[in-house]
Amino acid sequence: MEQSSLVLSIAQSARRASRRMAALDPKAKDPILNAMADALELQAATIIQANQRDLADGQTAGLSKAMLDRLMLNEQRIQAMANGLREIALLPDPVGHVLESWTRPNGLVINKTAVPIGVLLVIYESRPNVTADAAGLCFKSSNAVILRGGSESLRSNQAILNALVAGGGPLGLPEHAIQLVPTSDRNALYELLAMPDCIDLVIPRGGHGLIRAVAEHSKIPVLKHYNGVCHVYVDEAADLEMAKRIAVNAKCQRPGVCNAMETLLVHEAIAPDILPDLGQLLLNQGVEIRGDERVRKLISQAVPVTEEDWRTEYLDLILSVRVVPNLDAAIDHIEDYGSHHSDVIVTSNPNAAERFKRAIDSSTVYVNASSRFTDGAEFGMGAEIGISTDKLHARGPVGIRELTTYKYIVEGTGQIRG
Amino acid sequence: MEQSSLVLSIAQSARRASRRMAALDPKAKDPILNAMADALELQAATIIQANQRDLADGQTAGLSKAMLDRLMLNEQRIQAMANGLREIALLPDPVGHVLESWTRPNGLVINKTAVPIGVLLVIYESRPNVTADAAGLCFKSSNAVILRGGSESLRSNQAILNALVAGGGPLGLPEHAIQLVPTSDRNALYELLAMPDCIDLVIPRGGHGLIRAVAEHSKIPVLKHYNGVCHVYVDEAADLEMAKRIAVNAKCQRPGVCNAMETLLVHEAIAPDILPDLGQLLLNQGVEIRGDERVRKLISQAVPVTEEDWRTEYLDLILSVRVVPNLDAAIDHIEDYGSHHSDVIVTSNPNAAERFKRAIDSSTVYVNASSRFTDGAEFGMGAEIGISTDKLHARGPVGIRELTTYKYIVEGTGQIRG
Repeated sequence: MEQSSLVLSIAQSARRASRRMAALDPKAKDPILNAMADALELQAATIIQANQRDLADGQTAGLSKAMLDRLMLNEQRIQAMANGLREIALLPDPVGHVLESWTRPNGLVINKTAVPIGVLLVIYESRPNVTADAAGLCFKSSNAVILRGGSESLRSNQAILNALVAGGGPLGLPEHAIQLVPTSDRNALYELLAMPDCIDLVIPRGGHGLIRAVAEHSKIPVLKHYNGVCHVYVDEAADLEMAKRIAVNAKCQRPGVCNAMETLLVHEAIAPDILPDLGQLLLNQGVEIRGDERVRKLISQAVPVTEEDWRTEYLDLILSVRVVPNLDAAIDHIEDYGSHHSDVIVTSNPNAAERFKRAIDSSTVYVNASSRFTDGAEFGMGAEIGISTDKLHARGPVGIRELTTYKYIVEGTGQIRG
Repeated sequence: MEQSSLVLSIAQSARRASRRMAALDPKAKDPILNAMADALELQAATIIQANQRDLADGQTAGLSKAMLDRLMLNEQRIQAMANGLREIALLPDPVGHVLESWTRPNGLVINKTAVPIGVLLVIYESRPNVTADAAGLCFKSSNAVILRGGSESLRSNQAILNALVAGGGPLGLPEHAIQLVPTSDRNALYELLAMPDCIDLVIPRGGHGLIRAVAEHSKIPVLKHYNGVCHVYVDEAADLEMAKRIAVNAKCQRPGVCNAMETLLVHEAIAPDILPDLGQLLLNQGVEIRGDERVRKLISQAVPVTEEDWRTEYLDLILSVRVVPNLDAAIDHIEDYGSHHSDVIVTSNPNAAERFKRAIDSSTVYVNASSRFTDGAEFGMGAEIGISTDKLHARGPVGIRELTTYKYIVEGTGQIRG
């Protein structure tokens, strides 16, 4: 593909900036982040002005009320962005950390050391706060970043970027370390996705369609955050009160997010003891229950479940429920239909817990806790740029440490190979 | 793409086998590896018979002597394969290892735990011993593997696979945990590369053309092992005797491998002190020296170097040499022309070493040692399946630990999110 000069210039200057990021004094990073935060607040009026033009265009284009709300910036939201950057500044530097170190019989000291990945391309949809969040996380991990936001928020994103650069520049933010693609042209994106020599990793943040399209076009590795079809399995040895609490929390506490439960599996031995009660608790919260025949016998308001339901991420107050004959059947169900995000067993039997933990191939496997904890902040990592459902490089919450890779630094005293 | 039933059956049975691998008793793995080794020795005659048919066809097809030698198996080479498996059996199990563990204020215990990647597809060229080596490494790391060897060694590979399965099966080697694609049809390979639901990682072992073709066709992540354009930079503060020893070793000890030096960079301040001598040492070893003008003034036998040379992996007794004005110029040269494999600084100045270590973005960066140590065995990892020049998941030598990924196992006592 012939690269347009705009795209080529962005990608090549990002690669050059990644070298300056690697050479940047680590002690300079946190003051730069704080200065970027201050600049966001100082330039709030300018940012809001740009945002209002985006909002006006969005209204003309007929964006939904929900989309307009996601797009909207006010003083408070800008302050939240600034505080987000200040929180990132407080996190420990993930770069330069020696992950492992050992000495060989010939005296070579091998240090496996955390280093930046290089150049990241972050692709997102309408929320303009991602511009500041992603810039902060990539900068703290010493990566250069190319940001590509949604077309409807282009002016807002540009105003935010201008503030970040104005704040960070005087303190040493390397030129082009944070760039924004100044067009929403799809071809420009596809050109970037074909430049593995300049870009090391692509992180799409958004719906399934966006991620799928990026993955299909990319010649660069993509860190994917697909569906969360999360399960809670209530074992025959479960504490039933705990199981009810966990199931209600996993489904209802915030149903629209990826770590909410979508399917409940119940061991047949305890189904009659728990399902009538638990069903009522869920119905009281407004949950629509879709169950197999055995479930419907125990929860009369349940409607029939279809094969399609088992694969569905509802992101809503809907739950599919199945009675299973044993632990193995629960494991098979999760491995067949799940999305390898977050899955829970509730059990007091350590052997059952052990088998579940080993067999379930998900980014996070829980014993006796709600699936809702799969989250960078809940894990204690600080802010996250997403949650990976991929198998490689990073699984689960992706914070600043997951935005690094490693290299081996080998210290010798003149060793040669015999 | 419409999958042929053969390919679909291989890929789906590998996925099922990966679940059985995850459930396999870890204590069963080493006895299975030893039984596979014994079976190779027991079935040596059968394997050699199959190999002789491959060799006869290879001769008819006009394979070069070097290729026929790579293809050839005898008792000794089969014993080496068997011993390779026994050595893998002695390595510590990389699976189940808790990489990190921490407790959250709410009492949740988060264990970041090493787990198998799942299903690996290993693609290789003519050497049939890779069949046993790759099978052993993938099995030890609890992955299911699909092996796809070269067309010229198909019968040898099949005979080796038969022995492995005959040896491991009775001790619990899961069915289809090790499979061989029984055809050298390129379309079958391309079909496999389009099945990310069944295969998690592709590892091509072979020349640049093979890796490039695999990377271009694959919808699955590929762990790439591209060129080794490795550099030795002799700083102005170098111990010159050490520098000569390292340069000669890095170039001459085994010039045909990826961690051999291809370009020597010398600081201008010490070039007159070291180049005449070092040039003579290299010429004595039969090295052809290609140098810039300043090099040719100091080494009269040197021939002119071209821009193309700086990017070339000679894999031969040829060396490009450049005099650079300072450390920064050396860093820029390596970052502009290198392949991010292994690069060396020889210096007694800790500040220069520090800047080089931080700026050089290669899988392995050496201070005062030969580049020839980038190797699984030399690093103390045991056997390696390759050396990654990629940025993500694994860099440098890829041993059994690099054939694992991680998941979070979270232990609770009924925690729900507030």
